[in-house]
Amino acid sequence: MTPQAATHKGNATREMIVARAYDIAARHGLEGLSIGELATAAGMSKSGVFAHFGSREDLQLTVLEWTAERYALAVIVPAVGLPRGLPRLRAIMENWFRWVCDNPDGCIILAAAHEYDARPGLLHDRIVDWLRQLRLQLLKAIGMCVDTGELSRDTDPVLLAFELFAIAQGLHDARLYDADQAPQLAHRSLDRLLASYGAPAVSTSA
Amino acid sequence: MTPQAATHKGNATREMIVARAYDIAARHGLEGLSIGELATAAGMSKSGVFAHFGSREDLQLTVLEWTAERYALAVIVPAVGLPRGLPRLRAIMENWFRWVCDNPDGCIILAAAHEYDARPGLLHDRIVDWLRQLRLQLLKAIGMCVDTGELSRDTDPVLLAFELFAIAQGLHDARLYDADQAPQLAHRSLDRLLASYGAPAVSTSA
Repeated sequence: MTPQAATHKGNATREMIVARAYDIAARHGLEGLSIGELATAAGMSKSGVFAHFGSREDLQLTVLEWTAERYALAVIVPAVGLPRGLPRLRAIMENWFRWVCDNPDGCIILAAAHEYDARPGLLHDRIVDWLRQLRLQLLKAIGMCVDTGELSRDTDPVLLAFELFAIAQGLHDARLYDADQAPQLAHRSLDRLLASYGAPAVSTSA
Repeated sequence: MTPQAATHKGNATREMIVARAYDIAARHGLEGLSIGELATAAGMSKSGVFAHFGSREDLQLTVLEWTAERYALAVIVPAVGLPRGLPRLRAIMENWFRWVCDNPDGCIILAAAHEYDARPGLLHDRIVDWLRQLRLQLLKAIGMCVDTGELSRDTDPVLLAFELFAIAQGLHDARLYDADQAPQLAHRSLDRLLASYGAPAVSTSA
């Protein structure tokens, strides 16, 4: 094998391990990620897994980054292609709702926010950083809606960002107690919330 | 020791173990509850802990029940003493916010909703049941507000209950990314939400 081919194969193996680790972490949480279970799922030895990741924490951080990248590709990137203002803000939220519903085992990052809220360390810091980055994205998108006049001039972006976050998190948990209605409740909440800040009613209902 | 005294001592020990287990579960989640760590925290042997709880799951369920009782005492019971209508609904929410903020390591039940959403079993079922009971409480309190005329006749109680849940959950996570502002953001969201259903503005600000 040429060095390039070996590197390519190494990367592919690493990617496969992360994908298997993601599946386990989605069900059991990042703290529930056992190297033994992962090695079995990947058809490798434990030492084979450790050859790709220095430590369990290194693997957990990689799974978190991998999830954050997938989240960005599913939620943020498609929205940024839309016109500034309400279409973009709505798209972020609707993509986020879809992300929550498309991950039937739950969103690893929102789950990790609960797992690590009282466990100081790299994972905690990375999650807090991710939540803050996401809030910045929302603040930016909200600001544009105020600039375009689609949301009221006296909109408090920090408050609205909190409320938008809350709906996504509410959807995440409502899947548990009312899976059938949860997505449409989230959409209706979003419409009511944006309307309370002066957004015009939507013509297309989700 | 008389049989009554022995029973009393056994109950006190059991209660002490549950309180220690609660502290560990608040930090590490119910799945992170290790019998070894618990035995050390309680100053007992592992078999001493198992003498009081048949299994780890039995202990986890007991911690969950214990937490649910504390939640009811802190959030629901004081609110039920208030007049039917908005005072009672507001009190449930404000007590809930206080509960979230008074548990700096996070609410075990909301965290468990994430831990067990993809793990079928007794714990999963108990949490879903708890979430549904809580929603029923909210639906009842909302219905009374409509009856008293404090909330609009066309209020959809299921939608409003979803939105109230979302704010409490939003507060739970906002502690992580903006601890300073999180409580007042939750209060302001609650005021805006209730106002959007026709509630009169509050004179006392929290």
